[in-house]
Amino acid sequence: MTTAQGSVPSVDALLASVDASFESSTRRLCDFLRIPSVSTDPSYDAETRRCADWLVNELRAIGFEAEAAKTIGHPMVVAHHPGVGPDAAKRPRILYYGHYDVQPADPLELWKSPPFEPVIVDGPRGKRVVARGAVDDKGQVMGIVEALRAWHALAGGPPCPVTLMIEGEEESGSRSLEPFMHASKERLAADVCVVSDTGMWDVATPAITTRLRGLVYMEVTVHGPSRDLHSGMYGGAVPNPINVLARILSELHDKDRRVTIPGFYDGVSELPADTKAQWESLGFSDAEFLGDIGLSQGFGETGRSTLERTWSRPTCDVNGISGGYEGKGAKTVIAAHATAKVSFRLVSRQDPERIAAAFKQFVEARLPAGCRAEFESHGANPAIEVSESSRYLGAAEKGLARVFGKPALRIGTGGSIPAVGAIGRILGMDSLLVGFGLDDDCVHSPNEKFELACYQNAIRSHAAMLAEFAALAR
Amino acid sequence: MTTAQGSVPSVDALLASVDASFESSTRRLCDFLRIPSVSTDPSYDAETRRCADWLVNELRAIGFEAEAAKTIGHPMVVAHHPGVGPDAAKRPRILYYGHYDVQPADPLELWKSPPFEPVIVDGPRGKRVVARGAVDDKGQVMGIVEALRAWHALAGGPPCPVTLMIEGEEESGSRSLEPFMHASKERLAADVCVVSDTGMWDVATPAITTRLRGLVYMEVTVHGPSRDLHSGMYGGAVPNPINVLARILSELHDKDRRVTIPGFYDGVSELPADTKAQWESLGFSDAEFLGDIGLSQGFGETGRSTLERTWSRPTCDVNGISGGYEGKGAKTVIAAHATAKVSFRLVSRQDPERIAAAFKQFVEARLPAGCRAEFESHGANPAIEVSESSRYLGAAEKGLARVFGKPALRIGTGGSIPAVGAIGRILGMDSLLVGFGLDDDCVHSPNEKFELACYQNAIRSHAAMLAEFAALAR
Repeated sequence: MTTAQGSVPSVDALLASVDASFESSTRRLCDFLRIPSVSTDPSYDAETRRCADWLVNELRAIGFEAEAAKTIGHPMVVAHHPGVGPDAAKRPRILYYGHYDVQPADPLELWKSPPFEPVIVDGPRGKRVVARGAVDDKGQVMGIVEALRAWHALAGGPPCPVTLMIEGEEESGSRSLEPFMHASKERLAADVCVVSDTGMWDVATPAITTRLRGLVYMEVTVHGPSRDLHSGMYGGAVPNPINVLARILSELHDKDRRVTIPGFYDGVSELPADTKAQWESLGFSDAEFLGDIGLSQGFGETGRSTLERTWSRPTCDVNGISGGYEGKGAKTVIAAHATAKVSFRLVSRQDPERIAAAFKQFVEARLPAGCRAEFESHGANPAIEVSESSRYLGAAEKGLARVFGKPALRIGTGGSIPAVGAIGRILGMDSLLVGFGLDDDCVHSPNEKFELACYQNAIRSHAAMLAEFAALAR
Repeated sequence: MTTAQGSVPSVDALLASVDASFESSTRRLCDFLRIPSVSTDPSYDAETRRCADWLVNELRAIGFEAEAAKTIGHPMVVAHHPGVGPDAAKRPRILYYGHYDVQPADPLELWKSPPFEPVIVDGPRGKRVVARGAVDDKGQVMGIVEALRAWHALAGGPPCPVTLMIEGEEESGSRSLEPFMHASKERLAADVCVVSDTGMWDVATPAITTRLRGLVYMEVTVHGPSRDLHSGMYGGAVPNPINVLARILSELHDKDRRVTIPGFYDGVSELPADTKAQWESLGFSDAEFLGDIGLSQGFGETGRSTLERTWSRPTCDVNGISGGYEGKGAKTVIAAHATAKVSFRLVSRQDPERIAAAFKQFVEARLPAGCRAEFESHGANPAIEVSESSRYLGAAEKGLARVFGKPALRIGTGGSIPAVGAIGRILGMDSLLVGFGLDDDCVHSPNEKFELACYQNAIRSHAAMLAEFAALAR
């Protein structure tokens, strides 16, 4: 990463190039955001495909060999560049992972502007782009692409071999990801994987996430009478699937908000004292975190702080429920069935498969005669703890410090990135989680946004981190 | 009701006339059923209005002075005929009550034919008409209209003064009914009210319903965080409105399925021994009642029979629930709010207003910090017990025996007909509940039907009962 290497531009020059083209980088992000790649809903399949093709074209334009590879589900965007110059092959190989699909946009009526018509609006921290996927994960993916564009502009390409694997199913269970990795090990071979789908500490402080919760997501439907019934004629004499479901869901927690499924806490480790002390020193503000979402106090497992609850403790949440008459007004009906989507966040060594099975048993054991339950799995993956001793972590921190003028924090996150576990297991490499979202970005909510300051720093950081990675011997 | 009275035709002649025109009676019922008068859903307002106008025209065609009277909600169809001949004014005045509105048709995908395109199909008891409203209550209203048509054909009109009050809001809380009755006491003056919105014992055995449960119907929305949240980033640290709602709903019943709201059972009387004995002698079959809806055993308050549970015990059912992501696949969201529609069936002297208030308190007392509840009432009316000593009851039984060749049973019903209480309270008259539905008619469910045999007997019975009423001195 010195001028002595000739073909490698200075970090200052890279950052200047990023800043000079930032307006067009923003324009390209908006083009990306305009394509409604909602992977969970089959009615968007054609748009999701179009989104993959759009990204392939962008990558080809900066010298990558790229394709939207066929999978059992949505295409996998995969691209490769061997690196520029004779030294490239001696430098570390970098794999970037992200996703081009987005969450559904509903409830639509709460969006101030249409979710797939990105707008740039003013906020307290300057301009921001508002659209579904702004930060999760299109904005972060474009952080990588635009950094590679700066390298392309100044040096004809990246300084080391770079591969991108950008999937289209992260928001819907990633069912193609593992089969694709198994079948493409050679093609995806690298020394480290950089994942950009997480957050910063705050707008001025970068962060590297070293701890992620796992996820088990189940859908359960309780069936009772063979058809909808008049609640006057039958009420009181037959099992009501909504009442039955509500009772089962309510029994998932005890009065201390611990999950009651037998064996649920098997494999959960207590937080090491030094990690706990480090988290306490972060200056995390309950008032700010909760105040932003209209709450004045937290609600969760007794005796745990908010950071522990979201970073190091397992949970159970009902993500959706439906049954009976949901229209306006009244209908005196006993529904034939009722459905809930229930997810569990996992930590440490909790076993997703065992928890999914124990949940089914838990439900079955509580069904009254005349009711039966049907289950559908929407994903199961374990928690991840990323190694904190890797030299790539040190290099990334150097790059981030260069851009922000202060050290990055090492943090946890409550969300799950199933890919990280699979990349370690199947491709045999560590992941570095460096992301640029903020807590108030409304991820998965209406009016999702990405601060343009964060977007610009994402591009700058990826450009600088790549220079630091290239400076390491392979 | 004898030929000696000259203008009064014989019952045999009336029944023959009904039978001779039954094909056109069925055609007219189908015309009525084709109008989607879903009163609870504002998008059907124009159709509901059109349905009232259709009925007005039918009544005018048989000599009634009729109008679709303006109310604060859907129009009230009100019609009057002074009776034919000089003796009419000396005979009892009859008020008929029914409703022309229908329940919503959803879930649409479970209908074998479109709900508002009536079809005549074969069933185990002969032909039946399938459509939303077939029996509840359009088929039953047409039972009255077509009986009056037979009187019109044979005698130029009914033998005594007849008024009809057919409302358009029975399925959505009847909010106009009481104001309308208060404002129209003179116009609605009568000696007895005949209501046709209940069932028979079985296809061969008529019944008069003397006991109806009341209803309190509340909608509750639990609000938590100010926006939808990512369940990974916030899960475990904030109250989840769906989990909170499920817990509250689950606490509405104890392990014996008794309702736990304080004071809920105030005013509930035990069934008198003789009534209980009579019900036990009815030969009611649990296996048949429950088998028809896919159940092999009942589920309700411990120590009560199915008839007690549905006719004489109060209940609580969740009629609808919704919250969070209800689409296909997975969305890892914590919803900002969740809603349930909860109804209570009341008996004896339970006070609807006190129960509505106690339910609100019950919910409020169980909300964790950070959550609030919003309530909407969709109706509150007490239970009814109809006098069994009225001479009109005796006359109706005579008419029914004439048609069916066997005595009618006196039964209870689990459903509510709010109008009956209001008619007694405001108009000062008893109601006679004579209906022609069957338990398997799929009232409020997909594929609602009315047996043509029941429809024909409904017309015959109303024609014969009117002759019996006319034979009573006023």
